[in-house]
Amino acid sequence: MKKSMLSSKKRNSDLRLMISLSVLFFASGILFSGFILNKESETSVLQTHKVAQIGIVVKDIEKASAQFAELFGIEKPDCILAENPEDNPTRYAGELTEAGCKLAFINLENIQLELIEPLGKPSTWNDFLVEKGGGIHHLGFWVENMDDKMEKLKEMKINEVQRGGWTGGQYCYLETPAEMGIFIELLENFNK
Amino acid sequence: MKKSMLSSKKRNSDLRLMISLSVLFFASGILFSGFILNKESETSVLQTHKVAQIGIVVKDIEKASAQFAELFGIEKPDCILAENPEDNPTRYAGELTEAGCKLAFINLENIQLELIEPLGKPSTWNDFLVEKGGGIHHLGFWVENMDDKMEKLKEMKINEVQRGGWTGGQYCYLETPAEMGIFIELLENFNK
Repeated sequence: MKKSMLSSKKRNSDLRLMISLSVLFFASGILFSGFILNKESETSVLQTHKVAQIGIVVKDIEKASAQFAELFGIEKPDCILAENPEDNPTRYAGELTEAGCKLAFINLENIQLELIEPLGKPSTWNDFLVEKGGGIHHLGFWVENMDDKMEKLKEMKINEVQRGGWTGGQYCYLETPAEMGIFIELLENFNK
Repeated sequence: MKKSMLSSKKRNSDLRLMISLSVLFFASGILFSGFILNKESETSVLQTHKVAQIGIVVKDIEKASAQFAELFGIEKPDCILAENPEDNPTRYAGELTEAGCKLAFINLENIQLELIEPLGKPSTWNDFLVEKGGGIHHLGFWVENMDDKMEKLKEMKINEVQRGGWTGGQYCYLETPAEMGIFIELLENFNK
């Protein structure tokens, strides 16, 4: 084998190594961004420090979603009727309820806005609309083992007000003590 | 110069190149993550799709901040008295006001919670506490050229309710139309 061929082979091998390392470090950069932000959340009862959703109760979701879309310069999102699945019916204040709502989602850079129009039956959304005139209702967090989390939250006087589900998942709204004064929502996906 | 020295010099040079490229690609990875998320915000009047802050009005910021800290498993944040700077005094509903507040900030993974305890004088915070009992008051966005943004927002019937500043920056709360039903806050840093 000629020396020049060996040298060329060496260069190709170096080049492959460099490309591999570049791809590896590029991916590491992306992962590192996420890791830095995630490492502190283990101390939280929720085991997350990421607010996934901001829930906003509105009276007329068609008008509201059009105006939010205009503000953010995006297409108006679809408004969908949220089903009340038979195998996980909605409970509000400890009672079964036929509460329904219309939903529209707006995905921003770091968070999702969830617009909610209650449809009149008893629910935390309907009470919020009647009592407060609507507005920003809750902060939502994706969790695992929702019921375990709820047990721990109960010790902090953060208690269930409404729970229900959809095909493939479940949610629960909890009321924080008066000093905190907000609702939080736990969201759990069964298909993870 | 001996051949082995030349070869060693070549290896060192290759190594330096590889390290430089690795650092470059690592940094590109981090920047790329940000770019992908940012590219759609140019169509927004606000020129951002990032919700920087969720403002929560509370009655007793010491108790509230302790409870939020417990929920997230973090140290209780300091509660600070927000100054009303002489060169940019607070205006509420078109009038000068001596409104002050106490603030505490909780930095989560993707967003900052801002707890606000109003101190009694006329302000959007105080009215929100009196009328709604507190809760989630606004979504805050960092912007440039705040006054230009406000002109454009006025065309969408999103109007100033309160503005003021701090050393090095200014803020404005705006009320969205009743259909949207929330306050937004524009934040501008003069020292960028």
